Amino acid sequence: MTDAARPDPNSTLSYEQSGVVYDLIDPLKVAAQRAAAATAGHLAAHGFAEVAASRGESAYVVDVGPFHLASIVECLGSKALVADEMQRLTGRSHYDAIAQDTIAMAINDLITVGATPLVVQAYWAAGGSDWFGDSARAQALVAGWKRACDHCGVAWGGGETPALAGIVADGRIDLAASCTGIVSPKSRLSLGDRLAPGDAIVLLASSGIHANGLSLARKLVERLPAGYLTEVAPGLTYGDALLAPTVLYSPVTEALFRAGIVPRYCANITGHGWRKLLRHPAALTYRIDALPAVPPVLAFIQQHARQDDREAYGTLNMGAGFALFVAAEDAARTVEVARAQGVEALVAGRVEAGPKRLLIEPLGIEFGSDELQLR
Amino acid sequence: MTDAARPDPNSTLSYEQSGVVYDLIDPLKVAAQRAAAATAGHLAAHGFAEVAASRGESAYVVDVGPFHLASIVECLGSKALVADEMQRLTGRSHYDAIAQDTIAMAINDLITVGATPLVVQAYWAAGGSDWFGDSARAQALVAGWKRACDHCGVAWGGGETPALAGIVADGRIDLAASCTGIVSPKSRLSLGDRLAPGDAIVLLASSGIHANGLSLARKLVERLPAGYLTEVAPGLTYGDALLAPTVLYSPVTEALFRAGIVPRYCANITGHGWRKLLRHPAALTYRIDALPAVPPVLAFIQQHARQDDREAYGTLNMGAGFALFVAAEDAARTVEVARAQGVEALVAGRVEAGPKRLLIEPLGIEFGSDELQLR
Repeated sequence: MTDAARPDPNSTLSYEQSGVVYDLIDPLKVAAQRAAAATAGHLAAHGFAEVAASRGESAYVVDVGPFHLASIVECLGSKALVADEMQRLTGRSHYDAIAQDTIAMAINDLITVGATPLVVQAYWAAGGSDWFGDSARAQALVAGWKRACDHCGVAWGGGETPALAGIVADGRIDLAASCTGIVSPKSRLSLGDRLAPGDAIVLLASSGIHANGLSLARKLVERLPAGYLTEVAPGLTYGDALLAPTVLYSPVTEALFRAGIVPRYCANITGHGWRKLLRHPAALTYRIDALPAVPPVLAFIQQHARQDDREAYGTLNMGAGFALFVAAEDAARTVEVARAQGVEALVAGRVEAGPKRLLIEPLGIEFGSDELQLR
Repeated sequence: MTDAARPDPNSTLSYEQSGVVYDLIDPLKVAAQRAAAATAGHLAAHGFAEVAASRGESAYVVDVGPFHLASIVECLGSKALVADEMQRLTGRSHYDAIAQDTIAMAINDLITVGATPLVVQAYWAAGGSDWFGDSARAQALVAGWKRACDHCGVAWGGGETPALAGIVADGRIDLAASCTGIVSPKSRLSLGDRLAPGDAIVLLASSGIHANGLSLARKLVERLPAGYLTEVAPGLTYGDALLAPTVLYSPVTEALFRAGIVPRYCANITGHGWRKLLRHPAALTYRIDALPAVPPVLAFIQQHARQDDREAYGTLNMGAGFALFVAAEDAARTVEVARAQGVEALVAGRVEAGPKRLLIEPLGIEFGSDELQLR
């Protein structure tokens, strides 16, 4: 890009400017969702049925008799590009963290429906056989993948490691994970049919940007004096801060079940930031009166991208990686259970009767029902 | 590539020359397999256990009590590059066929363990939002995906459609599918513990190259007078012939179960061609005395790549897309059941006591135990 074409560095950098054009993707998504929904009847031939409320949720659920089966495939996104650039700049491979991010994308979605993740499969598609020739990087990927599986108590079933020259860009890797789990007992299903006014909203802390908003974060590098090596806090570079691995939340949801707490609904806060709190289809108002601490890297992004709070909270997780909607009487104990698993948490607000909207009161922000179109 | 650098057109074109260097990938695969195997114990915390014999097989199997759970993620590979080139040359999108290929890669592997596929998830990672802007191509992908799900009686659960500029090459798409199924009753498990001398080898016909060997097939285009438009048979171009979609074999395995036939073992014939018949770890001899018809496109590739039969059968499917190892008394009926599902089949040989080797008698070829390293 020439200087003449460079955008005004004082302007707001929005997610759309970072290059992902949803208007082009969305018609395909709608067509695919319709076609997919039309295949559900096939399960009847096996004596099974889909749990229809899971259509459009974060994981697909099938009633297979003694329990529900949940499955998902999820992509890391562009975070690996940050790891590649930081390896070039510092020599250190962050692919152990990147592996955890990839697994987190799948597991943190799968658990929203109340599932216990059982098996993860690895999808590592490289731009050529050469990618695997950097053995330190490859071993970091393997070690990080295993450690994340150990942390979540899932079996790593296997996977696919194709070399896709001409499809995946030279020197790059396309990382994804599929995950299969069960909802057992079936009463653990948390698709939101019991979500009601009076329920509490508990937010689980994020570790940083996680794996959403990276297109924006990478675009922002152009504006920083030392690029990825610009310090976010003393001794912490922007690149290192971005690469803090995504928190794995399944130990929390498993511990909640052992403690006798079944969330009424869950939202994994990924793309669209806090607008994901509007995920449930019901007309309900979500009132937030307490905010989690904002990780330094997200405060830094908001500042340098010159985003106002509305843009920041509507795009990034701003310190909340996962939302649990629980009965009011379970709220305090939910926080305790999360902390006992090493995950900071707070009772951030409550569900109320009223039009579908999210009110972030400490910031004076309101998001309406038209600001999250997922179905 | 300049003419000076062009390889001798009379030389043999091997799979390694086509650009995939297994020596670079294999150390990672071994490390990943070891790390993955070490995670199996986590299932005990849920009261479950892996079916250890599925490690290294085509799908991973977990005993979850009333039945076994099987899961997999599989990549299409580079076949989409042929579709892209044919669209450029003819204007027609073959992404309906490409969708079937992608699903076949997952389902044809999943069924080898005796599983009934239940749910497919789509992984469509494009090089940018633009990819989805070609609506004819996008709709072909959706329609083909649904049709393949309908054909196999699986529910399309959902999936992921990321735009991955900088990771996936501009204008390309990385396609994969994950599939979850169950082995029910558990006696359907076909991991080969009952495979024994005397068993028959039934080969199911392929429709062409399927989705393995495409790197070689694309490399060969450089040698053809009219490239992808060179005729393989009157009125049939090389490009169109390559794009015949992979046969979906799950209707055959489901029909076999309904007919009371449980294969002792199955092998999906993909990479490494007929060497996949050596997949089972036991020391057994596989003697082939009858060959399936070779699809014209594969005969054409063998001829123009100047491969001898050993190279061709050790690389391509040569007309056999899937192998069923069944009790001798079930062999003839297995062929009938497959034909009733519209899939040509033949009793091609038998399992014998003896050292691990594959004898393709009509061609005088022998492959030894060291010629397929998968574990």
